[in-house]
Amino acid sequence: MSAKIRIGIAGYGNLGRGVELALGQNADMELVAVFSRRDPESLTLHSNKIPVYALADIERYKADIDVLILCGGSKEDLPEQGPHLAQWFNTIDSFDTHAAIPDYFSAVDAVAQKTQHTNIIAVGWDPGLFSINRLMGESVLPQGQTYTFWGKGLSQGHSDAVRRVDGVKAGVQYTLPVETAVNRVRSGEQPELSTREKHRRECFVVLTEGANEDTVRDHIVNMPNYFADYDTTVHFITLEELKRDHDAMPHGGFVIRSGISGNQTKQTIEYSLALGSNPEFTSSVLVAYARAAHRLAQKGEYGAKTVFDIAPGLLSPKTAADLRKELL
Amino acid sequence: MSAKIRIGIAGYGNLGRGVELALGQNADMELVAVFSRRDPESLTLHSNKIPVYALADIERYKADIDVLILCGGSKEDLPEQGPHLAQWFNTIDSFDTHAAIPDYFSAVDAVAQKTQHTNIIAVGWDPGLFSINRLMGESVLPQGQTYTFWGKGLSQGHSDAVRRVDGVKAGVQYTLPVETAVNRVRSGEQPELSTREKHRRECFVVLTEGANEDTVRDHIVNMPNYFADYDTTVHFITLEELKRDHDAMPHGGFVIRSGISGNQTKQTIEYSLALGSNPEFTSSVLVAYARAAHRLAQKGEYGAKTVFDIAPGLLSPKTAADLRKELL
Repeated sequence: MSAKIRIGIAGYGNLGRGVELALGQNADMELVAVFSRRDPESLTLHSNKIPVYALADIERYKADIDVLILCGGSKEDLPEQGPHLAQWFNTIDSFDTHAAIPDYFSAVDAVAQKTQHTNIIAVGWDPGLFSINRLMGESVLPQGQTYTFWGKGLSQGHSDAVRRVDGVKAGVQYTLPVETAVNRVRSGEQPELSTREKHRRECFVVLTEGANEDTVRDHIVNMPNYFADYDTTVHFITLEELKRDHDAMPHGGFVIRSGISGNQTKQTIEYSLALGSNPEFTSSVLVAYARAAHRLAQKGEYGAKTVFDIAPGLLSPKTAADLRKELL
Repeated sequence: MSAKIRIGIAGYGNLGRGVELALGQNADMELVAVFSRRDPESLTLHSNKIPVYALADIERYKADIDVLILCGGSKEDLPEQGPHLAQWFNTIDSFDTHAAIPDYFSAVDAVAQKTQHTNIIAVGWDPGLFSINRLMGESVLPQGQTYTFWGKGLSQGHSDAVRRVDGVKAGVQYTLPVETAVNRVRSGEQPELSTREKHRRECFVVLTEGANEDTVRDHIVNMPNYFADYDTTVHFITLEELKRDHDAMPHGGFVIRSGISGNQTKQTIEYSLALGSNPEFTSSVLVAYARAAHRLAQKGEYGAKTVFDIAPGLLSPKTAADLRKELL
């Protein structure tokens, strides 16, 4: 038996690949298997030493895995997989449909309580690290306003919307915080900000042959829900430029708590992320929380959990005494 | 019996006054008494409804207080008061002598375990919120460097050192992060930075009659330990200017984790504070952690704790279900 925490990955897309790489940075954990709905033979992992099994057979491996990291999508995969896999495994997932979190939590918790597993849901940076900062900001400074800004970041949903427009061959969309708004918030002004005042959108589009720039731009910037409520800039570029300059998946943002203490004293807490790769960073967060899930399960603290329930010390491989000595 | 969390304050200086004000922003808590070594009659509180008692008599009130917030200093007061008061009370303190934390923790823990109290030590922003961000940064991005910058902030110890120089009538000292260093760190360069490269110092000095500017400046900038390792600027001002422009106690700083994920991808986490009043902010943090101490004590989780042991959800007056719904 290994003393390392034995990790399984369920789903091998961008997130699963990121988890595999992140595990390589954590000496107290080891990846023991990847599970996929695809033909296991068809997957090429970073390491060829890791076995790939069919997701349908996963129950057989329940004794071999301390924590299973669910790397499926929030729309189709997790609502079904989360509660289902909680019957056999401690799990971590990055469920990120904010409005559906209470129902998803209940569904996972019902299984987890019955089968005695520890299942931390909605882990990542938003929901996740940003949520912690929203909570701590308002707890420490009860009189104030919390602002969340996203970007500069590639938005998958908005990029898809751009690509569905007639005349668009390929393209990407970035969400950007409006700098003047961020600066007003940082100053302690506590402004009321409209959707348009907080974020702007920037599209890089490759046209199909013969398509008209003005027509395509009009379609994009006036698209309801996606772009109409924002100031949107559309840049037309070549396919070569798209591949050369827009292949990464950067993201990030800010959570700012602007509060007042005592006698009208301005206090500002700001948490920001500048991420070269959104899926790789999310993967790194999932792996740290897998360590916490394992420890809680060992202590018999079962049930669905969120980042709000996890003490920071559980995320580190160091002992509590070392943490107090080195980092406090 | 009130359903509110009943708080006592031990020590009524800047921090104790800040705690009194912060409690006014938290509807689920109430201040029931202030304890002081000074003559209780000599204290003027913000609210004249709060009784003031002699600290020597505090044992009498042990049944009336859910959490006692210790507002004494780390040098003289807390090393004695922390373990002593833990025999009767759940406590929160802001012990901030980093190197002495392990011993202090052990001393408080020994009493707390024996008398079944919950005692959270070293609460504030550094140690405290900054410590949490150092821990979480290295846990999420194990391959990387953590940088802590302080300022712009008024330093009490360095201001005292300036005021001890011959020819100085009055003065204050600010610590400032060096902007070029901060920007290098933010860029993901992971530089090695010397003391001088990270922070600079700025003094505002009122001279005594007939004192020589150059002599005083030389004394200050060459003072070992305090200034010799830094680039220090000395400004000479009038007593009126000092009172008008340098009466506040601002502070703040940054914790930046610059890391690499996956395939050499740069990832940056930054936590920053811009505080109009250092003691008022620290007080606000103490009060949020008092809520956590009360809850842990109610669950029978006794012993000395630090911010590393406290799940974020314990800091908020909201229920876990509301937190998941509103903030996750």
